[in-house]
Amino acid sequence: MVVELISVGTEILLGNIVNTNAAYLSEKCAGLGLACYYQDVVGDNEGRLYETIRTALSRADILLISGGLGPTQDDLTKEVAAKVMGKSLYLHEESKTAIRTFFEKRGLEITDNNWKQAMVPEDCIVVNNPNGTAPGIIMAENGKHVVLMPGPPNELIPMFETSIIPYLAKLQDSVIYSQTVKICGVGESKAETMVKDLIDGQTNPTIATYAKTGEVHLRVTAGAENEKAAKKLVKPMVKELKGRFGSHVYTTDDEVTLEKAVVDLLLANKLSLVTAESCTGGMLAARLVNVSGVSDVFKGGFVTYSNKAKRRLLGVKKSLLAKHGAVSEETAREMAKGAALVSKADVTVGITGIAGPDGGTAQKPVGLVYIACDVRGNISVREYHFSGGRAKIRENTVSAALTMLRECILQYYSEVTFGGKEK
Amino acid sequence: MVVELISVGTEILLGNIVNTNAAYLSEKCAGLGLACYYQDVVGDNEGRLYETIRTALSRADILLISGGLGPTQDDLTKEVAAKVMGKSLYLHEESKTAIRTFFEKRGLEITDNNWKQAMVPEDCIVVNNPNGTAPGIIMAENGKHVVLMPGPPNELIPMFETSIIPYLAKLQDSVIYSQTVKICGVGESKAETMVKDLIDGQTNPTIATYAKTGEVHLRVTAGAENEKAAKKLVKPMVKELKGRFGSHVYTTDDEVTLEKAVVDLLLANKLSLVTAESCTGGMLAARLVNVSGVSDVFKGGFVTYSNKAKRRLLGVKKSLLAKHGAVSEETAREMAKGAALVSKADVTVGITGIAGPDGGTAQKPVGLVYIACDVRGNISVREYHFSGGRAKIRENTVSAALTMLRECILQYYSEVTFGGKEK
Repeated sequence: MVVELISVGTEILLGNIVNTNAAYLSEKCAGLGLACYYQDVVGDNEGRLYETIRTALSRADILLISGGLGPTQDDLTKEVAAKVMGKSLYLHEESKTAIRTFFEKRGLEITDNNWKQAMVPEDCIVVNNPNGTAPGIIMAENGKHVVLMPGPPNELIPMFETSIIPYLAKLQDSVIYSQTVKICGVGESKAETMVKDLIDGQTNPTIATYAKTGEVHLRVTAGAENEKAAKKLVKPMVKELKGRFGSHVYTTDDEVTLEKAVVDLLLANKLSLVTAESCTGGMLAARLVNVSGVSDVFKGGFVTYSNKAKRRLLGVKKSLLAKHGAVSEETAREMAKGAALVSKADVTVGITGIAGPDGGTAQKPVGLVYIACDVRGNISVREYHFSGGRAKIRENTVSAALTMLRECILQYYSEVTFGGKEK
Repeated sequence: MVVELISVGTEILLGNIVNTNAAYLSEKCAGLGLACYYQDVVGDNEGRLYETIRTALSRADILLISGGLGPTQDDLTKEVAAKVMGKSLYLHEESKTAIRTFFEKRGLEITDNNWKQAMVPEDCIVVNNPNGTAPGIIMAENGKHVVLMPGPPNELIPMFETSIIPYLAKLQDSVIYSQTVKICGVGESKAETMVKDLIDGQTNPTIATYAKTGEVHLRVTAGAENEKAAKKLVKPMVKELKGRFGSHVYTTDDEVTLEKAVVDLLLANKLSLVTAESCTGGMLAARLVNVSGVSDVFKGGFVTYSNKAKRRLLGVKKSLLAKHGAVSEETAREMAKGAALVSKADVTVGITGIAGPDGGTAQKPVGLVYIACDVRGNISVREYHFSGGRAKIRENTVSAALTMLRECILQYYSEVTFGGKEK
């Protein structure tokens, strides 16, 4: 089946917000085995919205429309979509009650225009929205399905996962099941080469590669008459990929991020961690703190952007900084060692690099980064060369540090080896 | 004039990448005074791309098309756009030379398919691309303008700023000039209320409000026969807004971010800064390090997510943590004081809060945050209540900390007062 996404909102046309909903919904639809040929963005304008919905209906089976369900006069999506589908609106008592409860719980006063959100098209499915006042709407007729969802991601995403995915899954002749093999420490093009034979010959299951910062995700998707059969098709391919990428696979669980994998590894081995960051300036610590409950292993972090901070907080010697420079293998090593000495943590990581745009030289260009990892006195240092501007270099550095942390801990406990360039 | 954006790429339809180009181009077009009614995303498919370009041409004066200019057979944008415009392609010698130079400089081998990128439509303007091998293309006929740009943002953005903006500016009957008044410490709805009378009555200049995390940007745009006249229209409105928002205006320079404004304030007053972060876990430090050259003022940062780290690194007393809890006014205050004591920095900031999803109670719900700011011994603590999930709460906290830092430093040096809720 073919799906088309329509994002409604003048704020997107003005560039006020980035359309992350479209990326989220597209990825989910691909996972459901739905083909998406077009994404549209249109403003809160009756005529243009009407035409956009009509055109999309002529070329897709399913429309996922987000935004424009608010309480103001500007919000027209529900009214216009109902008009295209030839439906009139009526007051939905359950939605009215839900809206009243939502406001009362938060001690807010309801203004009259809020009742507009309780109006729904006849014969539609009303979808509960626990995170806001606009219910979702599903209209189905003559094999066409029009789904309306609120625009704010914190309302759209839970609604899509809880209510819309099961609805879409039921529309398919076959059940789609997919699993993601997440890989770190292998570049995108190398990973693609390593699975090219599988992708070239693929029918069911299929493999799609997604390049993320410092990671590659391989999504294996299969369709079958039921979930059990689909899973049975996916399983051997996941096994094949795990065999090919070995220890570089950090998870096959969609919910697990690279930072979560590192935190879980620390927890499993009862290791405490301390970070010492220069060019990333706290970004590695901030990513670790993405993981709720990280405090059981993360003892703390030092941000030592200046040389003075490297000396004072981590005890890096002035003479060493003078001799080798702040961006050097030696400084990274001393940062990790210093952090271990000061904090008594089991694992420490030291990061130093030139994020630019200034500060690069012919010998030490912008993008040169050294990361040192100390696991109970076993220190490794690696040299990296990143490109793509200050922000991108720093993001890549953080992903590389997480990858290296994971590899060094695994190596400490076993004979696992990785292809990294050790110094 | 009306502009329409077409983003070409199967990777967008698969949700592999977020369409940040569209947001960037939309915001720039709004700034140029161009109306944008539609954004389209279409894959690398000849038939669908042809139809999309034809439809867009029927409803807009200017098409900004990005993506699909690569060297592979999949990349069709130039070929299809030329077909719609009735143009044939020829080998453009300058582009061929530019591509050869690009490869030689990087010591890379040229493969034959790269010469595809030197083919351009007849009668077009070829736009230099210093950051890649695909030149930009401008085709103009019968009052319609079709602009083709490469998809990677690090190629598209410099090309758009250097070459496309001047071209678009020339198409306008009038010159458009805009300036942004950036405000912190005032909520979006309050800011909108404060300028409602100006917006309601606006013709030329116009004011557009952009809500950013913890900030509001007011863009004042005017059109006139020349830049001088347009600037003259913008100037009094900027003055009016500065008058209304007073010290909450942190810049009127498009290039200056909130973190840059804080760093500049520290530099101007020769103040050193140290951060102590719990729930934000290094995000404040990382944002400060966005500013190239921050090491002149930023002495370092502590990430003290666990209670142990708060005690060890900052000297927060065990008894105080036990009595008031890690998320409390008292702990925030002691974190800032402890950071000042340890580091001898002029300014310190302590952040503690409950980012969730776990850890909230009825008395201390998820989203409760305390920020303390110590300017040479003058300590303020503020209480905040944020919502929107772990990531959003942490982002809002960082913006609030930057805002508070700025206000506390300004207050220290003058009698400026802000409406903040001091503890």
